[in-house]
Amino acid sequence: MALIDSVKFDEKGLVTAVVQDILTNEVLMVAYMNRETFLETIDSGRMVYFSRSRGKRWLKGETSGHFQIVKELYIDCDGDSMLFKVKQTGAACHENYFSCFFRKCESSSWKIIRTKMEDK
Amino acid sequence: MALIDSVKFDEKGLVTAVVQDILTNEVLMVAYMNRETFLETIDSGRMVYFSRSRGKRWLKGETSGHFQIVKELYIDCDGDSMLFKVKQTGAACHENYFSCFFRKCESSSWKIIRTKMEDK
Repeated sequence: MALIDSVKFDEKGLVTAVVQDILTNEVLMVAYMNRETFLETIDSGRMVYFSRSRGKRWLKGETSGHFQIVKELYIDCDGDSMLFKVKQTGAACHENYFSCFFRKCESSSWKIIRTKMEDK
Repeated sequence: MALIDSVKFDEKGLVTAVVQDILTNEVLMVAYMNRETFLETIDSGRMVYFSRSRGKRWLKGETSGHFQIVKELYIDCDGDSMLFKVKQTGAACHENYFSCFFRKCESSSWKIIRTKMEDK
């Protein structure tokens, strides 16, 4: 049985991918994959998503150089969410934070609790 | 500005919630919230989801007793994914694993890499 046979793609053909840093266990981002980009990710060892906003394949790091190298992969009980542990190069977030989750709820408002990474 | 004003619910009125254990940083599960269950979660301090399969409110632990107590909350750059760090009582997974991500990709197949928790 192939790996992908256990993956439940939704009515749009997408599955949720949670991305966690292999070293710190920080959750870096959440994105989506279709069948093709899931297979490309497995095959290439680099995270490739399907961009819902742009409606097309999205190789993470293609423009920023901030590639994500797949180290471990887990699937949840329902098969509709995947957990990837990756080696993150540079910032995962396009706003130049290591993690996209750089805002925390404090005293009923969102506070930025990370510092931006240095540009190269 | 209210917390919820930064949350981007999708066309079905849902936002993705990634749930991480506050003690171990393990990712426990991925689920979804609508506006009402997001507000109830913030207000009550217990994780309340919207079940896509059952089409209704879902207080985690209501039948199992495995409640999730909210400890920290983060929002991502786009506002369409939330990260909750929780104190997990018992198993997060209905199959009695601590995390729903109990299957890992090894040698091109899914292997169960966790042990089930003891029943009470």
